[in-house]
Amino acid sequence: MVTFQSANPDYFLAHYGVGESSSRFGKPRWIEAATRLAMSKTLSVAIIRGRARGGGSEFAMACDVRFASREKAIFGQPEVGFGLIPGGGALERLPLLVGRSRAIEIVLGADDFDAMAERYGWINRAIPDADLDGFVANFVRRVLSFDSQALSTAKAILNPTGLPNEVQLRSTQASFGATLRWPEALQRMAKSRERGLGVAGEFELNIGRHVADL
Amino acid sequence: MVTFQSANPDYFLAHYGVGESSSRFGKPRWIEAATRLAMSKTLSVAIIRGRARGGGSEFAMACDVRFASREKAIFGQPEVGFGLIPGGGALERLPLLVGRSRAIEIVLGADDFDAMAERYGWINRAIPDADLDGFVANFVRRVLSFDSQALSTAKAILNPTGLPNEVQLRSTQASFGATLRWPEALQRMAKSRERGLGVAGEFELNIGRHVADL
Amino acid sequence: MVTFQSANPDYFLAHYGVGESSSRFGKPRWIEAATRLAMSKTLSVAIIRGRARGGGSEFAMACDVRFASREKAIFGQPEVGFGLIPGGGALERLPLLVGRSRAIEIVLGADDFDAMAERYGWINRAIPDADLDGFVANFVRRVLSFDSQALSTAKAILNPTGLPNEVQLRSTQASFGATLRWPEALQRMAKSRERGLGVAGEFELNIGRHVADL
Repeated sequence: MVTFQSANPDYFLAHYGVGESSSRFGKPRWIEAATRLAMSKTLSVAIIRGRARGGGSEFAMACDVRFASREKAIFGQPEVGFGLIPGGGALERLPLLVGRSRAIEIVLGADDFDAMAERYGWINRAIPDADLDGFVANFVRRVLSFDSQALSTAKAILNPTGLPNEVQLRSTQASFGATLRWPEALQRMAKSRERGLGVAGEFELNIGRHVADL
Repeated sequence: MVTFQSANPDYFLAHYGVGESSSRFGKPRWIEAATRLAMSKTLSVAIIRGRARGGGSEFAMACDVRFASREKAIFGQPEVGFGLIPGGGALERLPLLVGRSRAIEIVLGADDFDAMAERYGWINRAIPDADLDGFVANFVRRVLSFDSQALSTAKAILNPTGLPNEVQLRSTQASFGATLRWPEALQRMAKSRERGLGVAGEFELNIGRHVADL
Repeated sequence: MVTFQSANPDYFLAHYGVGESSSRFGKPRWIEAATRLAMSKTLSVAIIRGRARGGGSEFAMACDVRFASREKAIFGQPEVGFGLIPGGGALERLPLLVGRSRAIEIVLGADDFDAMAERYGWINRAIPDADLDGFVANFVRRVLSFDSQALSTAKAILNPTGLPNEVQLRSTQASFGATLRWPEALQRMAKSRERGLGVAGEFELNIGRHVADL
C-alpha cells in the first residue's frame, strides 16, 4: 500500500508547470506512471488537503482511492481557462467517476470545487478535517492486516471496470501538447504568468476565480 | 453556449403530447435534435424550475449540463403509468446518469421526484432557488470568457463516455410508437384525458400521483 | 413483482457459509439465480434492515431495486478480511453501482457500511426506518397498478446498461472457489470460526471490525 499526502497545507499537488517554457524533468511520462498506479498490485491512496488542480487532480484520480478533508480540500481542472485542455487523464477519468454532464461542468466551467466533490464522485469521500487522519489510519491498519494475495487478486478483478482506455489517454496527451502552442493559449498563459501563475500567492490560491478574468 | 429555461413557473417543459391524436408538428425528429445538442461544439445548459416530465425530462437529459431549483424543480418519467414506455431517450440516458437500479425505480415507479434528483445524478446539482440565477450567471460568464477552441476541443474529447447509442435510441423510439397503439395504453390515455391530461390543472401538476390511480 | 425482506431484525441476509466444510445444499447455482432475477420480466425489490454482507450484499445487488433502513441497514463485503475474494458478483456489480474507486475501498477495506451506502450508490436510497414500510407499500401499490406489458418492456430495454458480464461472473466464481483452499484463507477462517463465525453473536454482528483483528 502506498499513501500520498502533502506537507504543504495549501496544496495537495498543484498543476503541471504550464508556466514554464520547458519542463525541468524532460519529457514527462505521466500516462505510463498513472497507468502503473492502477495496474500495480499495491493499493494507492490519496489523502487530500489543500489544492489538487490540473495534473494534481489527475494524479489523485490515478490513485485507487481518494479521501479528502471536508474543510481544506480544493479541486479543479482550470486548463480550459488557460486556453488549453486537460492532458493527463481528466478528460477520460472524470466522466467515468462523475458522469458526462458533471465532467463537462467541471472542465468547461474550469472553477474550483470544495469537498462537494464527494457528491459528484470525484473523490471517495470527504471527511471532517479533525477526523481525516484517524479515518485513514484505521483504513491503512485494516488493509495492512489482510493477506496480500487476497488484496491483489480482488484489485485485479475490480480493475477492468472504470479504468480509461490507454490509447485514448495518449491521444489526449498529444492533443494537449498541441494546445500549448495555440496563440490564444500562449496569450492567456503569458497574462497568467504576469498575474502570478507558478509562484506562491493569491493567483495560485484562487486559480478558479482568476482564470475567468484573463 | 445555449441556455434553456421556462417563463412558466410551473413547467420547465411538460411531456410529449400523448393526449393528442396526432402531432401538430408532423413527424417529430426528436432523436436527431437531441443528438445534435450533444455533438454540437456549443455547450447546452438546462436551467430547471417547475416540472420536467417525459419528453421534458428527456430534453433536459439531452442538454450537456442541468442546474435545477432545489424548491421548484420536479422530474418524472410517467410513461409506464400511461401504459407506455419512455421513447425519447430516458431508457438510454437514465442508466448512464443514475445507474441501472435507480433508472428502474424511476421508470417503473413512474413517480414525481423533487430536487433529490441530484442525489441520483439525474441533474448536475440542485441549487436553492434564490441562488440559482446568480449561480447560472456566473457559470455562463465564465464559459463565455474562455476560448471557444479550448471549449469545443474539451467537449469533443469528453463526449464519447456517457452518450447513449443512437441506434438504440431509434430502436426504442420505434418501440414507443408501437406502445401508443396498445389497447391498455389507449384505455389509460383516454381515462387520463378525461381527468385532465394535456390541460393546465391538478392532473398535470401532479401526474406522478394520478397515474397510479387510473 | 417480488419483494425480499427478513423477519430477523439483525440480518437481511448474512454471508455465504464459508464457515461450513461443505454446503448443505450441494453445488450452489448462484450466478444463474442472480442472472435470472435481472432478466426476469418481474421487478425484484430488496427491502433491507439489518446486515447484508458478502453473499447477502451480492443477493441485494442482484435485485433490481434496493431500499434500506437509514438506521438499521448494514452492508459489507468482508471476504478479503478472511483471505478470500467476493465470488458471487460483488467484484462485477459494485464497480457498476459505485464506481471503481469506491468499489476498491469497499472490497479491500472489508469494513461495514451503514446507510451512507446510499451516497455511494450501493443502494437506491436509505429511508428513515419509521417511513420505510410506507414508502415501500406506496412503491409496490404503484407498480402493481401498472400494465405488466409496459413494465416488462421498459425493464427489458433498461437492462443492458449496468448489468455485469456473465462470463466474468462465472470466472470470478471459479477464482473464489480457489481462494477457499489458500493456506492463509484456511487459517483465517479457522480463527474466525473459533471466534464465532457462523453462529449468532458478537463476531457475526460486527464482522467488519473483527476481520481486521484475525
